Amino acid sequence: MAPSAKLQKFEAVFLNKIVPELVQDAKDQNMPKEAVDWYERNLVHNTVGGKCNRGMSVVDTYQILTGKESLSDEEYERAAILGWCTELLQAYFLVADDMMDSSKTRRGQPCWYLVDGVGTIAINDSFMLEAAIYKLLKIHFRSEKYYVDLLELFHETTLQTEYGQLLDLLTAPEDRVNLANFSLEKHSFIVIYKTAFYSFYLPVALAMHMADVASESNLAAAKEVLIPLGEYFQIQDDYLDCYGDPAHIGKIGTDILDNKCSWLVNTALAIVTPEQRQILEENYGQKDGEKEKKVKELYLELGLEGRYKAYEEKTVAELKEKIEKVDESKGLKKAALYEFLNKVAGRSK
Amino acid sequence: MAPSAKLQKFEAVFLNKIVPELVQDAKDQNMPKEAVDWYERNLVHNTVGGKCNRGMSVVDTYQILTGKESLSDEEYERAAILGWCTELLQAYFLVADDMMDSSKTRRGQPCWYLVDGVGTIAINDSFMLEAAIYKLLKIHFRSEKYYVDLLELFHETTLQTEYGQLLDLLTAPEDRVNLANFSLEKHSFIVIYKTAFYSFYLPVALAMHMADVASESNLAAAKEVLIPLGEYFQIQDDYLDCYGDPAHIGKIGTDILDNKCSWLVNTALAIVTPEQRQILEENYGQKDGEKEKKVKELYLELGLEGRYKAYEEKTVAELKEKIEKVDESKGLKKAALYEFLNKVAGRSK
Ligand SMILES: [Mg+2]
Ligand SMILES: [Mg+2]
Ligand SMILES: [Mg+2]
Ligand SMILES: [Mg+2]
Ligand SMILES: [Mg+2]
Ligand SMILES: [Mg+2]
Repeated sequence: MAPSAKLQKFEAVFLNKIVPELVQDAKDQNMPKEAVDWYERNLVHNTVGGKCNRGMSVVDTYQILTGKESLSDEEYERAAILGWCTELLQAYFLVADDMMDSSKTRRGQPCWYLVDGVGTIAINDSFMLEAAIYKLLKIHFRSEKYYVDLLELFHETTLQTEYGQLLDLLTAPEDRVNLANFSLEKHSFIVIYKTAFYSFYLPVALAMHMADVASESNLAAAKEVLIPLGEYFQIQDDYLDCYGDPAHIGKIGTDILDNKCSWLVNTALAIVTPEQRQILEENYGQKDGEKEKKVKELYLELGLEGRYKAYEEKTVAELKEKIEKVDESKGLKKAALYEFLNKVAGRSK
Repeated sequence: MAPSAKLQKFEAVFLNKIVPELVQDAKDQNMPKEAVDWYERNLVHNTVGGKCNRGMSVVDTYQILTGKESLSDEEYERAAILGWCTELLQAYFLVADDMMDSSKTRRGQPCWYLVDGVGTIAINDSFMLEAAIYKLLKIHFRSEKYYVDLLELFHETTLQTEYGQLLDLLTAPEDRVNLANFSLEKHSFIVIYKTAFYSFYLPVALAMHMADVASESNLAAAKEVLIPLGEYFQIQDDYLDCYGDPAHIGKIGTDILDNKCSWLVNTALAIVTPEQRQILEENYGQKDGEKEKKVKELYLELGLEGRYKAYEEKTVAELKEKIEKVDESKGLKKAALYEFLNKVAGRSK
């Protein structure tokens, strides 16, 4: 299926099934129309319109794990609902993250809290996006023996992401530059907790439960690949922000200007001389193109691109080794993990 | 036990057991110290310091339902943990509500988002207060056969409260007075969803699960009393805001000035002549003591105090009748419900 048709099919589950179902619950409780309409608008504005990589990977992984040529409509829908729970979790975080970061746009649209009339109501709206997850799981998975595992998986992933978000907020406030806050250890914690758990481990673990291969040892084996893979994904993101081709990526990187706790600056901080550190102190995290240029010159001097390439090569090799060690006799499939590795290792945007 | 000693004992469970346990989880995941300390401060600032009526009512209800003279230390602690989960849920809502209402203080302290250095990080902090509930339930109740019931009860109550909060935010924004938005039906939805479910039904339902009397019919019987009781509690709150003795309540009511969607204004709107409505339109919801006085004069003219007394009398009689009909042979106890009714019907602040 063409990528756009695939996305359309996935989105249709949300728009034609999930949203009406969630809205119906509010109607059943006699919620007045203006609030029902608001809830619907919240759901659609904040959950639809992205690439849905995380959500669709639940379906793809489920298909690989079950080894089926194609999924029945019902099977597809159930896997897609778990995928949309992942997307709802992300929407919950992003609505709030945009408020905390004072962001202006998201996916080419104004951030929800900046939409006319929304403002801080967006906080309660983000809460409702999260609550929708558990409403959906109850409707569709309540009778499954892995129901409580799904609930705990979402609870655990949510707290982990909030741990990561908290450290990120404390380490790199946009308005107060303090490089003494930064370290590669903190960077690692932030990206693993804020991104890797919900973006990489969660979709696979969901598919594993649905495919009935979610033994403790299988989950541990998957996690051992997916968490470092998620970390690599974010480090690559940090690298591309500085070294990617803006024409190709579709945006111009601003991590240096924005005081981001990026892998590049943390790697630099770990190897700089006192004089070079002074250059960072004077130029990092300020909204000034000239200062950004000085930081980039220092990165060049420090050979950060080469260090990234070495990190990437080593990481990909280690991940392949780990995937190769997976014991497929217990139901986990190497192909499911390679699918993720190949998507990350192959990307340039 | 004296009320203050009772509260102290309850608070000790939070400070000596729950907080260390939650913080330990963050430490176990190698979260850097500044974030661990922040999380601890968030938990303490936002959860301790109130009257803990909701939380302590879990323990009291459990004791009545089991008919025990006194609880063992372990039993007390487990009931108190469920009580603190209720308090954490409230803290989650209140941290966010204060941001959405631009409130300044809470329990005599600055609102969390106004504490130096916090700001919008309070959004993620509110998320973490909620996530703490599920971490505690997992640690302490995972092996109970009613574990999944507890999870679903919290999920359901959370969504209900968010439904109520949403309608409240849409109906009565402090900055845009529009009495056409108001109605007694909306008032009823808002107070039942925003307050009654989590403040009245949730604590009792939790105690019923722990006491092993949470059959569907018992839960339904309890809900049939506790939801109208919670509505009555809020209507009484609206009444006291206008007619209570400030010296006794400890605060001066501001509902008229603040454009609150109060039972009084909604009752007035239902019975006014067009001329009287004009008085409301011109004077309600404005920060002006003279205008507030005009509204109060109209309330007098409309006999709202008498209407409230009639509502109260009728409601108390109906609630007593419902409680009397409870079938105690199935484990639910009238005394548990009377305990709530007496607290509400007897209060004057
Ligand atoms: Mg952001
Ligand atoms: Mg952010
Ligand atoms: Mg980036
Ligand atoms: Mg408020
Ligand atoms: Mg409010
Ligand atoms: Mg009040």
